[in-house]
Amino acid sequence: MELGSILMMLLVLFVLARIAAAVVERFGMPGLIGEIIIGIVISNLAIGDFNLIKSLDLVLGDVTNTNYSVLYTASELGVIFLLFSVGLETRVKDLLGSGKTAFFVALLGVIVPFLLGFAYIQVTEGNFTHAMFLAAAMVATSVGITARVIKDMGLMDKKESRIIISAAVIDDVLGMIVLAIVKGTAGSSSGLDILGLVIVVVEAVVFVLGVIFLAKYAVPAIVGKWTAMNQGRVGAGKEARKAPNALVLALIACTFFAWLAEEIGLAAIIGSFLAGMLFADYAEETGLMEKIETITTVFISFFFINVGLQVDLGSIGNVSVIVTIVVVLLMALVSKYIGCGLGAKLADRNIDKDGFNIIGVGMIPRGEVGIIVAALGISIVTESGELALSLELYSVIVIMAVATTIIAPPILSKLCRKKYPVDPGEETPEEGY
Amino acid sequence: MELGSILMMLLVLFVLARIAAAVVERFGMPGLIGEIIIGIVISNLAIGDFNLIKSLDLVLGDVTNTNYSVLYTASELGVIFLLFSVGLETRVKDLLGSGKTAFFVALLGVIVPFLLGFAYIQVTEGNFTHAMFLAAAMVATSVGITARVIKDMGLMDKKESRIIISAAVIDDVLGMIVLAIVKGTAGSSSGLDILGLVIVVVEAVVFVLGVIFLAKYAVPAIVGKWTAMNQGRVGAGKEARKAPNALVLALIACTFFAWLAEEIGLAAIIGSFLAGMLFADYAEETGLMEKIETITTVFISFFFINVGLQVDLGSIGNVSVIVTIVVVLLMALVSKYIGCGLGAKLADRNIDKDGFNIIGVGMIPRGEVGIIVAALGISIVTESGELALSLELYSVIVIMAVATTIIAPPILSKLCRKKYPVDPGEETPEEGY
Repeated sequence: MELGSILMMLLVLFVLARIAAAVVERFGMPGLIGEIIIGIVISNLAIGDFNLIKSLDLVLGDVTNTNYSVLYTASELGVIFLLFSVGLETRVKDLLGSGKTAFFVALLGVIVPFLLGFAYIQVTEGNFTHAMFLAAAMVATSVGITARVIKDMGLMDKKESRIIISAAVIDDVLGMIVLAIVKGTAGSSSGLDILGLVIVVVEAVVFVLGVIFLAKYAVPAIVGKWTAMNQGRVGAGKEARKAPNALVLALIACTFFAWLAEEIGLAAIIGSFLAGMLFADYAEETGLMEKIETITTVFISFFFINVGLQVDLGSIGNVSVIVTIVVVLLMALVSKYIGCGLGAKLADRNIDKDGFNIIGVGMIPRGEVGIIVAALGISIVTESGELALSLELYSVIVIMAVATTIIAPPILSKLCRKKYPVDPGEETPEEGY
Repeated sequence: MELGSILMMLLVLFVLARIAAAVVERFGMPGLIGEIIIGIVISNLAIGDFNLIKSLDLVLGDVTNTNYSVLYTASELGVIFLLFSVGLETRVKDLLGSGKTAFFVALLGVIVPFLLGFAYIQVTEGNFTHAMFLAAAMVATSVGITARVIKDMGLMDKKESRIIISAAVIDDVLGMIVLAIVKGTAGSSSGLDILGLVIVVVEAVVFVLGVIFLAKYAVPAIVGKWTAMNQGRVGAGKEARKAPNALVLALIACTFFAWLAEEIGLAAIIGSFLAGMLFADYAEETGLMEKIETITTVFISFFFINVGLQVDLGSIGNVSVIVTIVVVLLMALVSKYIGCGLGAKLADRNIDKDGFNIIGVGMIPRGEVGIIVAALGISIVTESGELALSLELYSVIVIMAVATTIIAPPILSKLCRKKYPVDPGEETPEEGY
């Protein structure tokens, strides 16, 4: 067997990814940016006859290649666990009680970028599936990056901060519904299949509402019974066994929901995100959050480096693609800024201009979520035998997501400092996930 | 891509393994026994035309089969992390200061079973490599199972207990050296290649001593510098970043040493065990132990269920194999009992008959380590194109290891209760790893 070769491949990619992450973190950027960039460098750079991908026995995209099967699985499990941990942070009761303003910010922050992105590709390319995927990639705000900037500035208790955090959570749920719809319609590359679309929308909404219902009623009941049962047991070791049981249960639920979502035509990450929501109320007391983060650390670097590996710089070297990159990036910045700012203003007349700016800019970073949508797009083959997303648009989205994540934080911290002047001893944001 | 199929395969095997583990734990046995048994059941039972292995898209032993590549890698990573965590529990300073008695117990407890096992197969089969692998599988005591019985009885402070625990640790290190030698000589199936053997012995000893040296001198110096450097950094977030760094460093070291060991002809698990020893002094303060256990939980069930999957009940259905099973099992029980008891008696005249019995029986369980050696044996192809271990002997070892692990604990607890009568409120041992 090829154990040595598998270990070597995992080791080299992991070490390169973590070094790249550490380097960009020194400059105050999230680590995943470094991991994506090193992936792009590895796959586009050949030093003489030396090609790292080949040296690692990797044949990208070939499932009969042992090392690629392993890399692919590690990368998918990474993103499944990442979304599971995002779900763990999404408590249903916070979601339901997060208020009108946050809801409007999220809603307009989803609708405006989606419509802009869709319209642009539909008009210029005329490819319905491509337009849907690009639009979906423009939708989701990266909770982590936004939250970290605010937290590092010590502004978590401000009105705008609470709106942004709540809106980002609702945004995640809406984003998952959009993704479900987009993935569900990816089959009909010929155009809009109304019946199919309706089925997918119903499926996605039922799935999401079903999980919210389970999380609110069924899970507390089960946990209550379980606790009562365990309290009946005599002797020590009971406490010690509680945590591993929670972990095993969480792993099973995460994998099951990921599989189920995949099976009914949604994306695996939607399933794991919803599975995370099921456990959100128990994530802290059982130590589950920390354990899932540990597991995510093992896998997630393989996802982002793999995202980079699939960016073909050769395919974006012409003027039309560069124009697309610029337009998509501008739309990504403007649509969230206006959509979210407007949503806040419409719902709450007390939001001033600075508040509008902070909320609008705070919702700009796409980070991992936009990239995850793009990666999904190039993994789906439509009925007509094409990929659901072209490799050019894949690269455009990756660059857009990376750029928004780099651009927004410094602007956001300037805006925050303008509205809330504080002593300037705060730290730059660190750790990317 | 086949994400749904991969998730399904992982999910079904994980759920079955954990259920089986939970069931045998109810009967006071370690969970891994259940995981191995369910593996045997799955691969040997077909219900009508239904075969679970095929339904899960698994082609056992075929690396071009995506699902098998994934299962194989998960199972190998599981055992690599398991041995890493055993290494984490093996502090060099405890090892060096564990005393004459423990050393003799370990040494005779390695020599007697090895010679008996080797002699038996060499005489009956005449196959040198088979004899070496079976002998190596008879050597290693499973620290976890022994320690858990003693701990559950509240006898950790007794003289015999301290000797057993120390001896089991030394036993692990000796076992790794034996395994290195056996793996290194697996090429020469024609017989004993003295020069080759010397090279492997030197390599193994240098590797082990090198790591002990690193752990004692180099690592404390590096950690000291690292801490001093980090203390120089201003601001918050420093504490939070310490732990993830330790995890990333540990993952890299574990994989690197596993790869290195594999590369120089030792076994990957020897490398990860030694890597664990490097971090042993820092495993608690950095929370590393808990994190590695979390990661092990994700992977390890796949190892033990895969061990079971490869047991072919058809191949052990004849009289000669059944005789071998009985003889090997008896030798496994007697050789450890006498070897370790005698070692204790020779080194310390104050050990009475009950002490002899407790130490002898306490060192009997082979558990995971014997099984790991067997699994390694059927993964190596010798120069003559045969497996280093026959599938019959593989099954014999698995059954022997399982049986010793089931037989020893109840006898041990009876012997302990005889020598140290206590109030009978103690718990049965739980959790298998």
